[in-house]
Amino acid sequence: MMIPKSKHPVIVERIAEILGDGRLKVGSQVPDASLRDWSAERGGTPLALVTPESTEQVSAVLRACHEAGVPVVPQGGLTGLAGGAVPSDGAVLLSLAAMNRIEEIDTTSGLMVVQAGCVLQTLQDAAEAAGRSFQLDLGARGSSQIGGNIATNAGGNRVIRYGMARELVLGLEVVLADGTVLPMMNRMPKNNAALDLKHLFIGSEGTLGVITRAVFRLHPSVAGANAALVALSGFSDAAGLLAHAQKSLSGRVTAFELMWADYYAAVLAATGRRPPVAEGHAVYALVEMQGSDPDGEHDAFQAMLEGAFEAGLVQDAAIAMSQREVDDFWALRDGIAEILSHRATTINFDVSVPLARIGECVDDIRAALKSRFPDLQVIFFGHAGDSNIHLVAGPIEAVDPTGHGIETAVYDLVRAYGGSVSAEHGIGLHKKPWLSYSRSPAELDLLRRMKSMLDPKGILNPGKVL
Amino acid sequence: MMIPKSKHPVIVERIAEILGDGRLKVGSQVPDASLRDWSAERGGTPLALVTPESTEQVSAVLRACHEAGVPVVPQGGLTGLAGGAVPSDGAVLLSLAAMNRIEEIDTTSGLMVVQAGCVLQTLQDAAEAAGRSFQLDLGARGSSQIGGNIATNAGGNRVIRYGMARELVLGLEVVLADGTVLPMMNRMPKNNAALDLKHLFIGSEGTLGVITRAVFRLHPSVAGANAALVALSGFSDAAGLLAHAQKSLSGRVTAFELMWADYYAAVLAATGRRPPVAEGHAVYALVEMQGSDPDGEHDAFQAMLEGAFEAGLVQDAAIAMSQREVDDFWALRDGIAEILSHRATTINFDVSVPLARIGECVDDIRAALKSRFPDLQVIFFGHAGDSNIHLVAGPIEAVDPTGHGIETAVYDLVRAYGGSVSAEHGIGLHKKPWLSYSRSPAELDLLRRMKSMLDPKGILNPGKVL
Repeated sequence: MMIPKSKHPVIVERIAEILGDGRLKVGSQVPDASLRDWSAERGGTPLALVTPESTEQVSAVLRACHEAGVPVVPQGGLTGLAGGAVPSDGAVLLSLAAMNRIEEIDTTSGLMVVQAGCVLQTLQDAAEAAGRSFQLDLGARGSSQIGGNIATNAGGNRVIRYGMARELVLGLEVVLADGTVLPMMNRMPKNNAALDLKHLFIGSEGTLGVITRAVFRLHPSVAGANAALVALSGFSDAAGLLAHAQKSLSGRVTAFELMWADYYAAVLAATGRRPPVAEGHAVYALVEMQGSDPDGEHDAFQAMLEGAFEAGLVQDAAIAMSQREVDDFWALRDGIAEILSHRATTINFDVSVPLARIGECVDDIRAALKSRFPDLQVIFFGHAGDSNIHLVAGPIEAVDPTGHGIETAVYDLVRAYGGSVSAEHGIGLHKKPWLSYSRSPAELDLLRRMKSMLDPKGILNPGKVL
Repeated sequence: MMIPKSKHPVIVERIAEILGDGRLKVGSQVPDASLRDWSAERGGTPLALVTPESTEQVSAVLRACHEAGVPVVPQGGLTGLAGGAVPSDGAVLLSLAAMNRIEEIDTTSGLMVVQAGCVLQTLQDAAEAAGRSFQLDLGARGSSQIGGNIATNAGGNRVIRYGMARELVLGLEVVLADGTVLPMMNRMPKNNAALDLKHLFIGSEGTLGVITRAVFRLHPSVAGANAALVALSGFSDAAGLLAHAQKSLSGRVTAFELMWADYYAAVLAATGRRPPVAEGHAVYALVEMQGSDPDGEHDAFQAMLEGAFEAGLVQDAAIAMSQREVDDFWALRDGIAEILSHRATTINFDVSVPLARIGECVDDIRAALKSRFPDLQVIFFGHAGDSNIHLVAGPIEAVDPTGHGIETAVYDLVRAYGGSVSAEHGIGLHKKPWLSYSRSPAELDLLRRMKSMLDPKGILNPGKVL
């Protein structure tokens, strides 16, 4: 193969030997799509893009880069929202896209063995076809790769019932910076044979190792859902409704999404949809209960809602009488995509605070932004059942110097409430300035020591997270 | 205070200064109860027993011991089954028993903030009194301390629905070997602000840090349960019943306990109880669904069971018509205590293998033991819904040299099935010889490097796990 001139011809030649033709692109051959993710972060200029097809190839590439001291940026579907996978200058981009095989579905054990480059939706569909369900779900399902979902400990729409990506991972195979393969492909829900090392890599955003394969837990398949869109007088009643619904339905709530009045008005305007319940209330909750027999489970869901009315928690409510109506409710929640397309450029937040304080925190953030940026539009929504608030501020000018001020105002309050500057999107490049708002100096020191131990030359995803 | 002569008078004096009177016992003052746990493992002779009452005191004691190079053995309720908390020679036993306050119950957020020395059952009762439930449950609930439950990632009776201890921990406070306090008292279900460091300590068995406080997730309270005791023709039908029940009940199964025929006969003999379903079947399953409205949920549970009959999965079944009958079913599962008291000395196993292969693995273990130890009694049972098999071999003579051979025979097969030598009890002292059966050399190497990084002088629980 022709090797173009580069700053690191030796490593490029070495990788070409390892991978053979067709799995290495150098310099200007690297496609634009590999240079960015779904965030606004812009990275550096990479040396090359490699697409190994096996764990052995990943290991060999890493060993070579480690020996040469060349940085490596692992890449999945590039749907991240924090810049965690954008290139570093001179880095080898290590795409897992060619490792996209489902190796096994064991319906009896309720597990699935997959390679890291599988697209999330492919796994959902394969589990469904096998009569089970894979309960990780998020907006980027059509392009995000499962290795990236694990590396960022992805959250999404069903966390309240099934947990984050972490809770779905039974086993992992990881390649360390020096090429060492760490086989941890556990298949059992219970395994206490010493420390469970896979947790070092879930949420490590490609800085501690490269995830190559995984074993996932599968859940029983679901046939559909009951859902309601509920209008509430404020967050306090929303928290009351959540507790009531969880108790009444024996923990079967699969989504509890809140939309504050500002979001509700914005999404109705952006989508042109008819409001299932009238505007004018403080907060709206989308409450969903998936199950194997939605018709048979309808009475219990309706009784839950009637109990909430009787308890004075609910102002108004629409209950879905069909899956189509369930989908209509979700269209309002998912309408954030249309809102964003109308408002660019916006600053989008992904924060969490202890559930009991969400209402107060939202009010404080709204007031702080109003006082400092009187003309700024802000809308609030999120997976409130998991303590997770999303807010969107803007549109602002793309180069508006107030952007950083808006972020500081929000993160100052998140810190004051003991919250997290990233509930689910991760730190990447974008949130590095605020990581110390949510982690103590002792934690940051330990994170640095972990990084030094696992990646002593600092070649893995340099400049990200820390 | 009078300081007796000791090998380490300086460190004892130093600790006496830190803790003041009444929180330090030296040499023969150390009570016998602090010298052993519920396993047969016997440790060494400790230097002293300390019972600090605050994180600051734990930190000061650890700093002093770290400087002096004196070993420290963290101790909770001493109910462990692997010798993880028995003394090392010359060690300071660090009991968390005096840190036993529930600091806060936040019912709105669904969380509880506790000190590590709280007894498990105290936490269950406090959550219940607050209208929530704390869903960690295991036989030692009346004496085990929560810090030990976290340090061993305890499992127990409700793992199939609520996960291991790990899944219930939102936040932790840990003191490192050198006295550094690591505050990670996160209160949110979602927090992706960099790697989640608490997982380094959950399941570390006191070798990487001392857990001092925790934030736990609380679940909705339950009012009772539906349950059935089901006779099956073999493990394959048991796995089919589990899948059917999980699907039919939309994942609400809270326990799926298997008892093989040998166990069923033994427990009926040991307890004198009447069999709810006749003997003579291959396997018996206790299927339970807790909920907020057991009467209202009864029809769904019964329909699940009827569906299982129609599918030909079930040979015979008894369905509980009251909580008392639910308790009667559990008495058979919990009757292992009576069996053990009649059979001492026994060798008790706690292994896991991938769920689909449990039946085959049990058959192989039974055959291997029968051929090598023809007179040995063996009974099989366990949390099969979580891949977890317990088996009890014996009685054998207490000093029987065949003991090790029995263990090797079992663990050889567990390894061949890709299983774990410890599903829930941990490694401690007892399972060290077999740790390499379930963890690869690369994993063991990384475990050693983690240990060196976090405890460079090796003072924390020396000789345990690795």
